[in-house]
Amino acid sequence: MSRNLKAVLFDVDDTLFPSSEFAEMARQSAVRAMVDAGLEVEFDLAMEELLDVVAEFTSNYGNHFDQLVVRLGDNLRDGVHRALVVAAGVRAYHDTKAELRPFPDAVRCIDELRKTNLQRGILTNGLTIKQAEKLIRLDLQHAFSPGAIFISEDLGVAKPHQRIFGIACKRLGRQPREVLYIGDNPVKDIDAAHEAGLVTVLRRGTGKHAQAVGAHAPDFEVSSLDEIRGILEREFGVEFDEG
Amino acid sequence: MSRNLKAVLFDVDDTLFPSSEFAEMARQSAVRAMVDAGLEVEFDLAMEELLDVVAEFTSNYGNHFDQLVVRLGDNLRDGVHRALVVAAGVRAYHDTKAELRPFPDAVRCIDELRKTNLQRGILTNGLTIKQAEKLIRLDLQHAFSPGAIFISEDLGVAKPHQRIFGIACKRLGRQPREVLYIGDNPVKDIDAAHEAGLVTVLRRGTGKHAQAVGAHAPDFEVSSLDEIRGILEREFGVEFDEG
Repeated sequence: MSRNLKAVLFDVDDTLFPSSEFAEMARQSAVRAMVDAGLEVEFDLAMEELLDVVAEFTSNYGNHFDQLVVRLGDNLRDGVHRALVVAAGVRAYHDTKAELRPFPDAVRCIDELRKTNLQRGILTNGLTIKQAEKLIRLDLQHAFSPGAIFISEDLGVAKPHQRIFGIACKRLGRQPREVLYIGDNPVKDIDAAHEAGLVTVLRRGTGKHAQAVGAHAPDFEVSSLDEIRGILEREFGVEFDEG
Repeated sequence: MSRNLKAVLFDVDDTLFPSSEFAEMARQSAVRAMVDAGLEVEFDLAMEELLDVVAEFTSNYGNHFDQLVVRLGDNLRDGVHRALVVAAGVRAYHDTKAELRPFPDAVRCIDELRKTNLQRGILTNGLTIKQAEKLIRLDLQHAFSPGAIFISEDLGVAKPHQRIFGIACKRLGRQPREVLYIGDNPVKDIDAAHEAGLVTVLRRGTGKHAQAVGAHAPDFEVSSLDEIRGILEREFGVEFDEG
């Protein structure tokens, strides 16, 4: 393995913050608010149907709650305006967003990386504005190096296509073997980055991919991002400036 | 004037809450956040340009902050991702929304109306989901009678067209002269409702229409919604149940 490491890129969802857990919490909060506002459906049934809406229309579709009300047959308390029920869901969902917090070990890891000469960045799938909003909500807008934010919508290609890693490396002015990628998904993150030639770190046990198995073993596997500093020192001779 | 009053409808923006003041506050907060995130433009210039964007693209256009950054020539701190700057603005704007509060006299007035047999409702211009979200944020989702929420986007016609008032009266099952309309705009609210045959109350001095003059004098003019109860008792013989 090259000891000449120049950059560390992170996946975002379930790597820098508990995305799966947060989405579940936000959806529960939305459905509770909709029932309170006049949706006459059992909470459990509404949750189940909402997950189906998300699965069928994708998580980036903009009108989940509207679709949910339609799907549940406009079963509303007498005389209640549908938009009030939808807006109650949207509001509760957005208010939950205000509670977005990064994993504490992600913050510590980024702070450690500031002590090195490595570039720090992210490489994530998703809609540009939505991924950017997550970084803002996580208060990570100043955490990364200039020009080191890579979002699939900006690049026209998404993980697991290895080309997205190639584009990122090229824009950073680095060879793939000089870049370390940290993600939680053994297939989309690890296999794809590995095939593109990057050094890979699997963050185990956080999100919905905890049990997945990829075709390639990661170069390193951690259960906490606090382990990253040791890997960088031991395996790549990276120096940390404690001044 | 008929003493047979059956319903009271309110305008929303600048009648039930300080919409103009709030929009100004939210925009300032957004521009401050954008400058902090890396927009390299003077605050005052950015505010001025944002107002132009709102005027040119209308207040219901969804991408004001994106447009603002483009308009300002993508003048960003080196290497900062444009979407981060846009998202910082969106986030600050949304967070301000969480602070939306009704005018205290509007809450008191609605509480007084609950003591009567009158239907309580709203009639407002705007996008359905946006107006509904305002009611939710104002915690007024349970304030109005079933079926008494009228929003222009739902009805295919907007103030100052008098037809929107006709549709609302018909759906309430009332004659126009049995319905009292309270708004802050002498032209869009008062002239239009007057021409449709409703009883009109002008709420003076809150928003951007404070100085406008309409073609018709309102039937009543108030500087506080606390005056509504007296008008209803004195002029229409409405009874208030204090039990």
